[in-house]
Formats: sequence, C-alpha cells, structure tokens
Amino acid sequence: MTEAIRYEHLKTCRQSGARLGRIHTPHGVIDTPIFMPVGTLATVKMMSPEELKEMDAQIILSNTYHLWLRPGEDLVEEAGGLHTFMNWDRPMLTDSGGFQVFSLSDLRDIDEEGVRFRNHISGERLFLSPEKAVHIQQSLGADIIMAFDECPPYPASYAYMRDSVARTSRWAERCLKAHDGNNGQQALFGIIQGGEYEDLRRESVEDLVSLDFPGYAIGGLSVGEPKSVMNEVLEQTTQHLPTDKPRYLMGVGSADALIDGTIRGVDMFDCVLPTRIGRNGTCMTSEGRKVIRNASFARDFRPIDEACGCYACRNYSRAYIRHLIKSKEAFGFRLTSYHNLYFLIELMRKVRQAIKEDRLLDFRASFFEQYGFNRPDAKNF
Amino acid sequence: MTEAIRYEHLKTCRQSGARLGRIHTPHGVIDTPIFMPVGTLATVKMMSPEELKEMDAQIILSNTYHLWLRPGEDLVEEAGGLHTFMNWDRPMLTDSGGFQVFSLSDLRDIDEEGVRFRNHISGERLFLSPEKAVHIQQSLGADIIMAFDECPPYPASYAYMRDSVARTSRWAERCLKAHDGNNGQQALFGIIQGGEYEDLRRESVEDLVSLDFPGYAIGGLSVGEPKSVMNEVLEQTTQHLPTDKPRYLMGVGSADALIDGTIRGVDMFDCVLPTRIGRNGTCMTSEGRKVIRNASFARDFRPIDEACGCYACRNYSRAYIRHLIKSKEAFGFRLTSYHNLYFLIELMRKVRQAIKEDRLLDFRASFFEQYGFNRPDAKNF
Repeated sequence: MTEAIRYEHLKTCRQSGARLGRIHTPHGVIDTPIFMPVGTLATVKMMSPEELKEMDAQIILSNTYHLWLRPGEDLVEEAGGLHTFMNWDRPMLTDSGGFQVFSLSDLRDIDEEGVRFRNHISGERLFLSPEKAVHIQQSLGADIIMAFDECPPYPASYAYMRDSVARTSRWAERCLKAHDGNNGQQALFGIIQGGEYEDLRRESVEDLVSLDFPGYAIGGLSVGEPKSVMNEVLEQTTQHLPTDKPRYLMGVGSADALIDGTIRGVDMFDCVLPTRIGRNGTCMTSEGRKVIRNASFARDFRPIDEACGCYACRNYSRAYIRHLIKSKEAFGFRLTSYHNLYFLIELMRKVRQAIKEDRLLDFRASFFEQYGFNRPDAKNF
Repeated sequence: MTEAIRYEHLKTCRQSGARLGRIHTPHGVIDTPIFMPVGTLATVKMMSPEELKEMDAQIILSNTYHLWLRPGEDLVEEAGGLHTFMNWDRPMLTDSGGFQVFSLSDLRDIDEEGVRFRNHISGERLFLSPEKAVHIQQSLGADIIMAFDECPPYPASYAYMRDSVARTSRWAERCLKAHDGNNGQQALFGIIQGGEYEDLRRESVEDLVSLDFPGYAIGGLSVGEPKSVMNEVLEQTTQHLPTDKPRYLMGVGSADALIDGTIRGVDMFDCVLPTRIGRNGTCMTSEGRKVIRNASFARDFRPIDEACGCYACRNYSRAYIRHLIKSKEAFGFRLTSYHNLYFLIELMRKVRQAIKEDRLLDFRASFFEQYGFNRPDAKNF
C-alpha cells in the first residue's frame, strides 16, 4: 500500500542539528519545520481560508472533539468531508480528541476500553475510545489524523504515568487496527507520552515505533511544565525517533518554543496562542509582545510591527487597531489574529532559511535577544 | 469656488420616473441610485475595506456621534482623516450626529443653541450644536457631510414639528456658515424634516433649497411610520427638490424601500440593516429572507441564495454557515454580513440597469413577487 504521506528529508543544519524537509500529503506538499494554525470548529477564528493562504499557511489543524459535538462528524462527512465543508483545499490535520477529553471535562472515567465523560457544553454523557476517535477522524477526512491517547496532567506520579503510557500504547495499536486509511488518503500518527520521565518516554517511543506509524506526535508537553523540562524531554524523545518520519510537537506556539523545538528535531507545531492572544489585543512583534489595547498606543500611528510586511501592518496603525479593539469591533480582532498568525508562519520561514544556511543557532541568539527572551522579566510569547 | 461634489443626471426612467446618475466626489465617482454600507465606528462591522470593494461598495457612511465619543475626531484628524485612519480610499459620507443624539440619549435638552445630553456609554454631559457638528465632520474629512438637524420621533404633534422644522432650518444656515469646505474637498448637505405633515415638509424644502446646498438628505423617515406614509412623504418632498442635486434618504435599507424610494426620485440610501440582521443569522435572498441559524438548514448544503454570485454563496453552504453561527464563530457573521451587503449593492445595480432600460416598474413587480413582499405575512426585509 502506498503511504498517504511521505517525509522527505532535505538537510540537517550543521550548526544546530535541526531538520529541513517536506511532507507530501494528498492535498499537497508542506515545508517543514512548520507552524499549523488551529481551526477548532472548522474555522481558524476570525480568518477566511483566503487570508490563511495569503499569509502562506500550508496546513491547518482542526479539533475532533469539538467537531464531534457540533456539528457532528456525520454532517461533515455528508458535506463531503472537512476540506469541502470549510472550503480549505490544502493539507489538514485533526487531533484525536484525547487532549480535550482530559482538559475540558471535569468528570471522566478511564478504563481499558476508553473514556466516559460529560459534554463540556450540554453535560450529556459521552464515550470516546480509540476506535471511536479513529472513526470520527475518518469521517472528517483530514490528511493526517492522530491516535487516541491519554494526556495526563503535569505533574503526574511515576506509577500513574507508567500505567498510562502502557495503555496509550495499547490504544495506539487499536487505532491502527481501526484505521482503514481512507483509500490511502489519510495517515495516522502515533502520540508519544511519558511526561518528564525519561525511561517512560523511551518506552513510549519504542512501543509506537514498533507499530510503524507514518509519523509521530509528541504529546503531554506544554501542559504547565517549565521550558527546560520541555526541551529536555524533546531531546530524549526525538533521538529515538526514526529520521524518515515527521515529528509533531502538539500544542506549542510560542516563538521561543518553536525555535527550540526545531533545534531538537521537531518538524510540526500547532497552537491556538496567536489567535487567542490576538483576540485579547496582544501582538507578537520583532521586538517582543505588544499589548495593542494599551492606552500608550492610542495615538501611535505606526504599524503593529515596523519590521512586518503583513496585511495588517501594511495598511493599519496601532491607533486604529486599538480603537477597534476598545470598541469590540471584529475587524480589530481580525487584524491582530492575522498579524500573529503571519508572525509565526514567517518565523518558521526564517527558521527554514537559517537551517538551509547552517546558522539556526545564530538566528536563535539574535531573535531571542531582539524579542526580549533574554530579559529577566521575559514572557513566554 | 468649485463645488466639492457634482451630480450628473444621466437619464430618467420613462416607466417610473426614477433617476439614473453619477455623483462626482473628491474620492471618485459613484453611480446612483446607490446603497451605502454603514461603518459606524470607522469599520463596516465584520468587513475589510478590500471585501467592500470586492462587492463593489462605491461609498460608505460613518457616524459622527460615535467617532466623536471614540476615538475622538482630533485623533482621527491626527491620523490624516477618516480615509487614512480606516484605509478607505473611495468616497465617504458622515452623518451629523443629530439622529444619534435623539435616538440614543434619554436625557437631552434642546434649545436654540444646540442640544445638551449624556454620553450613552459613560453618562458624561455633552453638548452638540450646528457649529460643533460641522467642526467634528471637518476633522473627520468625509467627502459629504450632513447639517445638524433635529430628528423628532414619530409621531410628533404638528405644533412640535412646526417649531422643530423652523429650528432645523436656522441650524442648517448656521452649519453652512460654519463650514469652510475643507479646501473644496467636502460638500455639506442639508436635511429636510417635517414628519408626515405635507406643508411642513414643503416649508423645510423651501428653507433649505433657498440656502442652496449641494445636496439634500431626507430625514425623519424610517422611524416607525408605515411604508405608505414614507412613500407619500417622499413623493411630496422630492418633487420640490432641485433636479441637479443628489437626494439622500437616510436610514433606509430594506429592499422594498430602496426600490420604492428610487421610484420617488431618491439617489442615495444607507442602513445598518444588512449587517445587523446578518449578525443575527438572517440573510436577504432572491426568495425573501432566510434565517440561516434555523435548524431546517442544518443539513442544507446549498448556498445561502442559489441565485447569488457573492463570495459567501460561491464557497460555503447553509449548513456550514449555520454551524459557524451556532458556534458564535466570527467567520459565520462575516459571511452573512458579506452576503447581505452584496445583496443590496447588487439590487441597486439591477435597479440602475432597469432605469437604463425604462422598466423599473416591471422590475419592481417581479422582484416584489419573488421576494414575497406581496404575501400577506410579508416582512420588511
């Protein structure tokens, strides 16, 4: 059987060890390392597909859990799948719903079969299992789908994590069995867990690699642990992963973590961060984050970021965007969301260029300095 | 002095008496009769300027009262005027704030000098006069601005209306004196009032025409009176207006009223209706209005309007848009707002074509029949 997706390795940065590559998917080729905007409910909040293409978003992510609850995967399938439903003809990835089951639901009951929990909107009792998660994702029809895993909280005890990793491995195998590949149009990734425990991460990698997935996600990070822990876990994990398969670090979207993840061999990232902080009036810029809704920008007629070439920065001032946001006008949130997404997509383009030129550590040093990550009061984005 | 704007009459419909024309403004030429989208706070809600141009919006309106309160006309002036501030390089019109003072403010005190009232957001005491309204509008810098008038409620007693019309005429004269014309880049329109009283409308027209404004607005309509009253007042009013100046019917945006106003000699219309009902999940279509958020559209994969060629109808289904609106996703409101604005702009394009071909009454008959205006339960939009 031909694989639905194929990772093409182009080069390794001699300075940092980061990977430059391409992933071939049924809906086209994406350049890695890459940031994937998140369209939770079959829409990247505030944005049109045309705007996402204009900013060169090559692949987007959608959330299985949310689409399962509304409008329902059967409706999306009836519409012709998620691509047709939301008018996105480029590659797409769905998560398995595992993360949301564990992060959004208070009442849940995990056993070998799956997870019983309550709908976070209606309170209705629901059940999600490896087979069910794969079935939903097959109906949605993304190019890349995820195995159903348990994402334990941070911190979790060693004993808990050991049992959880073993179960996630058994679930991964069930997902593989349940997945029919949508006629070679869909690839199923396994998800590595193990928390901050090196041996459990290693065990998780070995279990999943033995199942020979076409790609591997690294889960259970960016859940509250310090950045140093994340970086250490990444190093321990990626060194054991096959070099001919893509690696996807789930839920990571701060500029420093994208660069540091890339240096540790990660190819794909996703996060709601750029759109979420954008809707709160905060922008990522070449000089660090700016809270555009602050009074200090009321009469500032410069663009959000003078070094940025995005649609928002080419046409609108901080003063105008602040006015819109203060007035709760949607166009203001469109502009900040657009800018932040563009910022991360453009950052990854620069990261790819730096890998090509074997200077990613130099790029990291100057970017961190300019962004303010080296300051004592540095924030995470 | 060269006039900032000039009305060019192209032809009169032999069947209906409607006017086809053009208005030349400092920011370009607009085709009349025309519908003007409303951008209350320096943004047409949900829309980008590029989307407005794509749907062929030739002129937009912004609200003096709202921009005066925030961000303040001095800030807009410092930004280089409203055109630069909001990145709109086509013609623009601002109202005088009169309508909002009377419709949004509970506490107000009118005397000869002007109106004392409270800010509807902060409760702060404010004062607006003919001179102040002109001054603010000069700072904003639209191509067409409005005289400060009193817009009495419907119904108002004859005695009240008589005094109000006389005062509005005196205020109109003060507006003209206060207006310096922004170096020939701005035209000031007078506003006809008089409620449903024929002689007072006539008096208002005579007063204002004697002041020789470059254009005339018809105010005090669409404030709760029956459509028959509106049409009667329009007939009585437009017959006394000079034929070489544009006529603007304020606050009217339902499809039937646009057609009926055009037949009575009106050239310009504005209303928040298309964007407001769009944000509520209601769309205007060739077959009448559709409440897209209704459950009946949950699995309807047809476009909002099968006869429509707009961006929303070319790319998205009722089912998708309903899903977005039910999920309170901004992109859903973008699509319904886009569609409704396109619908009215396209309607006026068809109206102009019908005038050109001397068949506007025929067009009206078939449009009203298809839209459902002839049904006993017909709604206003």
